[in-house]
Amino acid sequence: MRIDIVNGPNLNLLGLREPDIYGTVSFSTYLEGLKADFPEVDIRYYQSNIEGELIDYLQACGFVCDGILLNAGGYTHTSVALSDTLAAITSPVIEVHISNIHAREEFRQQSLMARNCIGGITGLGLDGYRLGILHFLSIGS
Amino acid sequence: MRIDIVNGPNLNLLGLREPDIYGTVSFSTYLEGLKADFPEVDIRYYQSNIEGELIDYLQACGFVCDGILLNAGGYTHTSVALSDTLAAITSPVIEVHISNIHAREEFRQQSLMARNCIGGITGLGLDGYRLGILHFLSIGS
Amino acid sequence: MRIDIVNGPNLNLLGLREPDIYGTVSFSTYLEGLKADFPEVDIRYYQSNIEGELIDYLQACGFVCDGILLNAGGYTHTSVALSDTLAAITSPVIEVHISNIHAREEFRQQSLMARNCIGGITGLGLDGYRLGILHFLSIGS
Amino acid sequence: MRIDIVNGPNLNLLGLREPDIYGTVSFSTYLEGLKADFPEVDIRYYQSNIEGELIDYLQACGFVCDGILLNAGGYTHTSVALSDTLAAITSPVIEVHISNIHAREEFRQQSLMARNCIGGITGLGLDGYRLGILHFLSIGS
Amino acid sequence: MRIDIVNGPNLNLLGLREPDIYGTVSFSTYLEGLKADFPEVDIRYYQSNIEGELIDYLQACGFVCDGILLNAGGYTHTSVALSDTLAAITSPVIEVHISNIHAREEFRQQSLMARNCIGGITGLGLDGYRLGILHFLSIGS
Amino acid sequence: MRIDIVNGPNLNLLGLREPDIYGTVSFSTYLEGLKADFPEVDIRYYQSNIEGELIDYLQACGFVCDGILLNAGGYTHTSVALSDTLAAITSPVIEVHISNIHAREEFRQQSLMARNCIGGITGLGLDGYRLGILHFLSIGS
Amino acid sequence: MRIDIVNGPNLNLLGLREPDIYGTVSFSTYLEGLKADFPEVDIRYYQSNIEGELIDYLQACGFVCDGILLNAGGYTHTSVALSDTLAAITSPVIEVHISNIHAREEFRQQSLMARNCIGGITGLGLDGYRLGILHFLSIGS
Amino acid sequence: MRIDIVNGPNLNLLGLREPDIYGTVSFSTYLEGLKADFPEVDIRYYQSNIEGELIDYLQACGFVCDGILLNAGGYTHTSVALSDTLAAITSPVIEVHISNIHAREEFRQQSLMARNCIGGITGLGLDGYRLGILHFLSIGS
Amino acid sequence: MRIDIVNGPNLNLLGLREPDIYGTVSFSTYLEGLKADFPEVDIRYYQSNIEGELIDYLQACGFVCDGILLNAGGYTHTSVALSDTLAAITSPVIEVHISNIHAREEFRQQSLMARNCIGGITGLGLDGYRLGILHFLSIGS
Amino acid sequence: MRIDIVNGPNLNLLGLREPDIYGTVSFSTYLEGLKADFPEVDIRYYQSNIEGELIDYLQACGFVCDGILLNAGGYTHTSVALSDTLAAITSPVIEVHISNIHAREEFRQQSLMARNCIGGITGLGLDGYRLGILHFLSIGS
Amino acid sequence: MRIDIVNGPNLNLLGLREPDIYGTVSFSTYLEGLKADFPEVDIRYYQSNIEGELIDYLQACGFVCDGILLNAGGYTHTSVALSDTLAAITSPVIEVHISNIHAREEFRQQSLMARNCIGGITGLGLDGYRLGILHFLSIGS
Amino acid sequence: MRIDIVNGPNLNLLGLREPDIYGTVSFSTYLEGLKADFPEVDIRYYQSNIEGELIDYLQACGFVCDGILLNAGGYTHTSVALSDTLAAITSPVIEVHISNIHAREEFRQQSLMARNCIGGITGLGLDGYRLGILHFLSIGS
Repeated sequence: MRIDIVNGPNLNLLGLREPDIYGTVSFSTYLEGLKADFPEVDIRYYQSNIEGELIDYLQACGFVCDGILLNAGGYTHTSVALSDTLAAITSPVIEVHISNIHAREEFRQQSLMARNCIGGITGLGLDGYRLGILHFLSIGS
Repeated sequence: MRIDIVNGPNLNLLGLREPDIYGTVSFSTYLEGLKADFPEVDIRYYQSNIEGELIDYLQACGFVCDGILLNAGGYTHTSVALSDTLAAITSPVIEVHISNIHAREEFRQQSLMARNCIGGITGLGLDGYRLGILHFLSIGS
Repeated sequence: MRIDIVNGPNLNLLGLREPDIYGTVSFSTYLEGLKADFPEVDIRYYQSNIEGELIDYLQACGFVCDGILLNAGGYTHTSVALSDTLAAITSPVIEVHISNIHAREEFRQQSLMARNCIGGITGLGLDGYRLGILHFLSIGS
Repeated sequence: MRIDIVNGPNLNLLGLREPDIYGTVSFSTYLEGLKADFPEVDIRYYQSNIEGELIDYLQACGFVCDGILLNAGGYTHTSVALSDTLAAITSPVIEVHISNIHAREEFRQQSLMARNCIGGITGLGLDGYRLGILHFLSIGS
Repeated sequence: MRIDIVNGPNLNLLGLREPDIYGTVSFSTYLEGLKADFPEVDIRYYQSNIEGELIDYLQACGFVCDGILLNAGGYTHTSVALSDTLAAITSPVIEVHISNIHAREEFRQQSLMARNCIGGITGLGLDGYRLGILHFLSIGS
Repeated sequence: MRIDIVNGPNLNLLGLREPDIYGTVSFSTYLEGLKADFPEVDIRYYQSNIEGELIDYLQACGFVCDGILLNAGGYTHTSVALSDTLAAITSPVIEVHISNIHAREEFRQQSLMARNCIGGITGLGLDGYRLGILHFLSIGS
Repeated sequence: MRIDIVNGPNLNLLGLREPDIYGTVSFSTYLEGLKADFPEVDIRYYQSNIEGELIDYLQACGFVCDGILLNAGGYTHTSVALSDTLAAITSPVIEVHISNIHAREEFRQQSLMARNCIGGITGLGLDGYRLGILHFLSIGS
Repeated sequence: MRIDIVNGPNLNLLGLREPDIYGTVSFSTYLEGLKADFPEVDIRYYQSNIEGELIDYLQACGFVCDGILLNAGGYTHTSVALSDTLAAITSPVIEVHISNIHAREEFRQQSLMARNCIGGITGLGLDGYRLGILHFLSIGS
Repeated sequence: MRIDIVNGPNLNLLGLREPDIYGTVSFSTYLEGLKADFPEVDIRYYQSNIEGELIDYLQACGFVCDGILLNAGGYTHTSVALSDTLAAITSPVIEVHISNIHAREEFRQQSLMARNCIGGITGLGLDGYRLGILHFLSIGS
Repeated sequence: MRIDIVNGPNLNLLGLREPDIYGTVSFSTYLEGLKADFPEVDIRYYQSNIEGELIDYLQACGFVCDGILLNAGGYTHTSVALSDTLAAITSPVIEVHISNIHAREEFRQQSLMARNCIGGITGLGLDGYRLGILHFLSIGS
Repeated sequence: MRIDIVNGPNLNLLGLREPDIYGTVSFSTYLEGLKADFPEVDIRYYQSNIEGELIDYLQACGFVCDGILLNAGGYTHTSVALSDTLAAITSPVIEVHISNIHAREEFRQQSLMARNCIGGITGLGLDGYRLGILHFLSIGS
Repeated sequence: MRIDIVNGPNLNLLGLREPDIYGTVSFSTYLEGLKADFPEVDIRYYQSNIEGELIDYLQACGFVCDGILLNAGGYTHTSVALSDTLAAITSPVIEVHISNIHAREEFRQQSLMARNCIGGITGLGLDGYRLGILHFLSIGS
């Protein structure tokens, strides 16, 4: 089973950026632990701050992998193009958000991604990625 | 560790109601399996169609249990009173929705509960309850 | 043929409440006449001011009766939960309103029930219930 | 007793137009049956696709007949002029819609007619016209 | 003179709930003092978390008492049904809110109750109930 | 000097229709007096309930007369087509309304005509037509 | 007969300010001509840039004069206080605007004054004041 | 192959009306050239300023011709009735607009027709009609 | 203890203005009685129709008095500047409205003052001022 | 004559992506045919998923080519930056959409591009590109 | 060169009012330093809490000075009248705000002044006034 | 002191693009002069049309430089991702716009950047960059 984790803009700053909201662990540190926890899963990771590069990557992996965990960062609320990509590809996508976006600014309460995902996990910190993998394992996708 | 699952209106019809959206498994069948999977957790279950009874129950359990998994059903989008209860109690709450409410009617895309929950799991079917328990276990709440 | 009339909040005050809008006849008086007019129909009546009790009743009758005449009163405009129940049950529902809600305050002009009913009769006073029964008879539901 | 049925745009296509929404019976066929059912009522029928001709007709009949059943079709949602006519005439008007307009597109959910009608019957198919006549008979208007 | 104090959802938690907003005094403690201050007034108290039970109680007292002090809690902003009850009963109602709802979240700034009350007292803490009684005394209602 | 008075839907009912709003004088009676008051002006009159006939007439007179007094009735608020005609013709147009539309329902407070008129006279009863003629005389249009 | 002309902010700049919109004649020049045209009318004039001074003046004249021509300038669209004054006084008020406010910026298309005036004259330049006087003369107010 | 060109209100003024927006060629001149360019196509032309006559014509041709080019003029943005006709007929419809309506006033940016057309050509002047015919030829409709 | 009562525009007309809404007692008459009722309180009174004068006065008294009762009249709904003053001063402010503004026009239902007041009393007539003083006395501010 | 076709995000998936909406032909296949049809036109093609690369390309070609056919995909509805580029360059632009965006989700019904294009062709499938070239040829741009 | 600094309501409290937002320096202290920094500029200063007095002053200086630095305080967001004055005068105006109004309450994010200013400086504290003078010097206005 | 100037999409066209709005000077010419004026400041310059590259650059410089002057061009109004970057970095940011965006189209009147900047300078042409540097110098950031 191959699962791709795709992180959008500013998530490369994790651990540096607003630690009261996003915590102090960098994603690479977290990713190591995650791979160790799921040796049977081929976990791939991609991050970009460029909307179109995220689209490129999703087009590339979205017909071949078994599941995608997407945290589109700020593009979550503004990118019709990225959402269109999710509709076009065939791998199932779960939307992950580290912070509880519904409890923050109003413009963060709408996700353009959601309609083209099978579901979402929000506000449970980095643990959201682990839970997403567990769900993909449970449905054997 | 004690975790309370609180289900709102019409979730007693699970397995009967609109099976293309909600599946064909009844909640009691699912609950048995869940309890078997987590023998170390004291899982309590409550369901009511009455908004105020849900408030009564949440007030009763919300100062003593270690975590609450709340699926407020149709009250998710309309009940300020229920959301106020979540703000008043001290146990952490995770919002669970079986279907991907963000991909359905527009009025289902806003959750009044979200601002008073630590996070939410949406669209992953009944598996959302299991993932919620796993998260409570991981944070030791 | 069994038809259930389900009345929501404040309709127990009929005859007492704002007679210029709702008239001076109590519902029980009207109901007697109605039963006399349709001896061949098993007319059942339920009224509650509690949203969730209305849901309970509709869940109970909504898989077995041949038609429901629902006047959800003030819940008409606010209850997603009640509307969800109408979607979940299998008996056809006609929405009845005694007064012409479209000619009153703006917030009364939207019915959350309507999308899950087969139709509605509005503003024709208590006669709306009789017409509803006549329609169920005509379609043999 | 004289009752005028006034149908607006595209209702002359009944039986041809979108049969899954409007059925397969033409209005003239239906009208024959209706007249047969109510030999004691002088039922007149008028249809036009032209907004102003509907106004002309309503002005002509609206001071002399005992009741009007109006299905304004697409003008229901856009014609202030037609609604003004209903306010100007003295015969009582019941609004009839064959389909459940409240369950269709959002722009069909508002009726400019409603505020100047005594009530409305929606979604009960052609039977709405029969029920309207029965109501006029019951109030002896 | 009989005055009924009717408190809605979560007000049973007063003293426990968010003390920075609602203070640390429980309502029963406060009520004792209030009764002592007004020995000439028959002060009755009712609290429920259930919307329809509040309606039931208001229907029961609203034709016989001399004044009602209503704090509808979270239902203030969402319950058309409760507001309809206030229109139906004959006792005058004053709306009381402990916190300054106009200085809080935007959805708390609209009261559906207000249009059917004679007035309101907001943000003056529990003292709002005392002032309400003083006003009823002054108008001899 | 030629001035055309163009009246829209329902203004043929003047004197009959809602006399508390529109008065009890018919337009033909008023027109006689108006012609007598301005013997030097060639006053023409046209009324239709049909939007497109009003457009036809305005196209016919709108390149040859010296001024138009337009009361578009209910089309004032809904007809982009009629407003387009005013932009296309070359005669100056003054909008006249008998009642103070700004003090009535909200949907009457917007005029689609206004942007293509030189000005408007509202709420001064039938006297608005006289004042309009006086203005055309003063500017010698 | 006494008629008060009340001009609001920036109308003292008439003749200087944006001449393509407001023309090149100062109001005092125009006023002289107006007084000469109506020797039988006691025409009073007041202008202020201060909202509350306009209120003061309207309170002073609004119970004794026979008519008021009010051009509230920029306060037209924002002053609830000024509009309240119009409701409080007893002299009839006609709203005058020199330019066609309905053809300008959107925020100029709503008048808070209109609901408390008997009518309005818009876009006919300074001639609007003359027409207003003519109307007051015709109704003998 | 038969193609019907249907033009709505004010398009009979083409060549006269606002030439900076609509050009100086009359439609009849253009039509001659068009017929000459496509001798193999039976091009029919209809224009009316009356909404309901357009509906009548579309009902008449819309079941027998191979394609319709519709420029509904001002009715584009307001006529639910006309749009309903497009849904009822079976010939494919292409919407044509001479000017770029999306670059003009905001109320011109929404087309009620669009949802019931196969597509649209906007802003390419009279050439839009030619391109529409070319498309119908290419799909052999 | 010093308490300042500050009344805004048109409240100098109390007793004259719209007596069905505001009553027939002038404020000076009422004030005399109020002073007599509270001999121990230094009650000061200020009224102005000028927004900026109200700001001047509030700046002057707002750092030295023990409490302010503010009825900002029509400025309640429009004056950001006045609301800013309330935020800048240090004396606590209670907002008073004689009529139930929440039951009147929609634009009266929002108070810009409220967010910078400790609370408000609405709809209890002139008695609101007395209750406000009683509250200041109870908190010893 | 040089014409540049510029396609935005996800259009590289044409033929793969949602074939019921976008068809089964890849763009490169289509492009070959198009070039064969117009040997006299220098047709250039560019596609990118990256918003800023589309801007780069349009800046490069937009001062030298004779016409641009732009299908901005999902950026159509969100990119002010791309629209600004269209305003900055000098080559005329026609907007092309393969599907009828006006008949799809509401957020697809607004084009930020439109105001800076000469026109648009929507819903006519890949044929829209051919028609666009034909139009550029006809105007000799 | 003459530059007028015009400050609106509550700016006379600078140094006293909400020091975390506005700092602790009074404007007169700041002004002295500013005059010392620009001995070659004739800096005039005016402050009023009264909207109309600000209009009076701007009318007086706005045709003779070389530049105006306007901080309209709370009137920034509500005064059409003040904005109209800026359009009427001929001196260029720069809008200055001490705090970053765009990062505060939503109603502070719109400036009615902006459309009639050449530009604005926001959030840079009192330094905004110095920068404004430097700009006027650079353009030699 | 190091200050980074970061320009977004289309600003590389400065001097070419819409010269009536943006002037005729290219940014590189301007930058030379700016560097000459501030020899003591290390001025760095970056421009990109790609949203994510701007994010990359801001992440790189935003923890080490003393101040950032950001002109995000069209991304100003649409990019939540870019705004998130400003919140994540630690260098202070001043937003600069060459034209007065508040006096242009409505969608240009909202800046998503503003909430995460210390302030902004708008409409003062290229001089805004110089003023920004002067401010950074004055605060010694």
